[in-house]
Amino acid sequence: MKETVNRPYILITNDDGFEAKGIQKLTEALRSLGDIVVFAPDSPRSGASSAITITGVSFRKVSEEKGLTVYCCSGTPVDCIKLALNNVLEKKPDLIVSGINHGSNAAVSVVYSGTLGAAAEGAIFRIPSVGFSLDNHLPDADFSETQKIATIVCKKILEESLPNGTYLNVNVPAVEHVKGIKMCSQTEGKWENEFYEKEDAKGDKQYFFAGEFVSNESQLPSNDIAWLNKGYATIVPCKIDITDYSLLSKMTSWETSSLSLSEQ
Amino acid sequence: MKETVNRPYILITNDDGFEAKGIQKLTEALRSLGDIVVFAPDSPRSGASSAITITGVSFRKVSEEKGLTVYCCSGTPVDCIKLALNNVLEKKPDLIVSGINHGSNAAVSVVYSGTLGAAAEGAIFRIPSVGFSLDNHLPDADFSETQKIATIVCKKILEESLPNGTYLNVNVPAVEHVKGIKMCSQTEGKWENEFYEKEDAKGDKQYFFAGEFVSNESQLPSNDIAWLNKGYATIVPCKIDITDYSLLSKMTSWETSSLSLSEQ
Repeated sequence: MKETVNRPYILITNDDGFEAKGIQKLTEALRSLGDIVVFAPDSPRSGASSAITITGVSFRKVSEEKGLTVYCCSGTPVDCIKLALNNVLEKKPDLIVSGINHGSNAAVSVVYSGTLGAAAEGAIFRIPSVGFSLDNHLPDADFSETQKIATIVCKKILEESLPNGTYLNVNVPAVEHVKGIKMCSQTEGKWENEFYEKEDAKGDKQYFFAGEFVSNESQLPSNDIAWLNKGYATIVPCKIDITDYSLLSKMTSWETSSLSLSEQ
Repeated sequence: MKETVNRPYILITNDDGFEAKGIQKLTEALRSLGDIVVFAPDSPRSGASSAITITGVSFRKVSEEKGLTVYCCSGTPVDCIKLALNNVLEKKPDLIVSGINHGSNAAVSVVYSGTLGAAAEGAIFRIPSVGFSLDNHLPDADFSETQKIATIVCKKILEESLPNGTYLNVNVPAVEHVKGIKMCSQTEGKWENEFYEKEDAKGDKQYFFAGEFVSNESQLPSNDIAWLNKGYATIVPCKIDITDYSLLSKMTSWETSSLSLSEQ
């Protein structure tokens, strides 16, 4: 039996585009763990969430060497995962890894993040999936601590797997020495004062995102923002099934029969 | 006191664009319930999920009459909700309604849906929010049953409200007479054979979405696909906090201290 037969097969994507430093540092860190296919957007797609492109997408092979093949795609991170799994990869990967994002995806940012959209898509395909984000937006951010954490977490996933329908949202504080890794819940909160105005060349107002994250529970000991603020990396296990089961059982009075419908 | 003071204030959006029949029929149905602001994309944005546009968005007022103001926006459904709430509306709405989508958003489609992305955004702002979808993609679909259901559900939300952090995903089967409304869980499953290939003018391959939804649990009595197949409209209460709490408590062995980090 050839040694390569049992090497893990790892699919990597991101939302900052295949040329971003974050995905290159992630790929570099994970090459020791298995054979890698990078299939990532051809340009930045930050804030793409789980968006899909219904107007058509294309992709091309960028490079190929032993243990590493790189593709780029005109679509979103979720398009990348779907195209790779449906039409490109020779077999089902053992692990899908998204990132390393340039910027935090803690708390409610998981909702808007293309990085985490890709990880969610992996979980929909029942493949163990994880997204990594560093709380530093700069193109030349220092990813060395996040590389260590990604290696630890990905090793653990390859050893222990993850239950179907759950993926991991891993965030890393922008500090020189991360204190450790903590399991956390998603911090409740929202962004406020989200836009600033700017006039374009024609004098029309354009609105750009800015703002600040505000939470009522950032001091709760078990959530991700609290631990990031203390210098720890955080792991939030996230579900594809977003049904509010506790509320569901209380809402049976909302059900109606055809009779009451026809009375409207 | 003027009669209008206590009229509910309702924000409506969608992902098919402000000129789609679905949003016009929704607006028509809800005018009896309150004063309405429509703030919707200027063109179709199906599959936009919770995407945000970080490259700048703009909007314009389309029309204004007593009890109904219409804006259109260059951005996604979530951009629409954020812009309306941050920069345009004179007060916090009592209710946010998205739709009526041309096409089902049952089961895992909630993840990709711009219609539901907007409803989720409303919930992030702690405003009772709901998305309506009819299982018919045609531009001239018959929305009359969905209008009745939207009126019933929106009345109920205005009377009873919804807990913070939860929004409703309402789907309606494309039948002449809907049998009733059922409270449901999100059906597990995924889309398969998702792309078809087409060569563009240059001979390059483009990939377009198609495929079919496949579920292992479509026969479970409590989920949305099962009830839609029986001719019922379905309500799935959906959570913003997607933490997998049951898994979280089992994953403490994934935590590491700084010591084990530095040993990597």
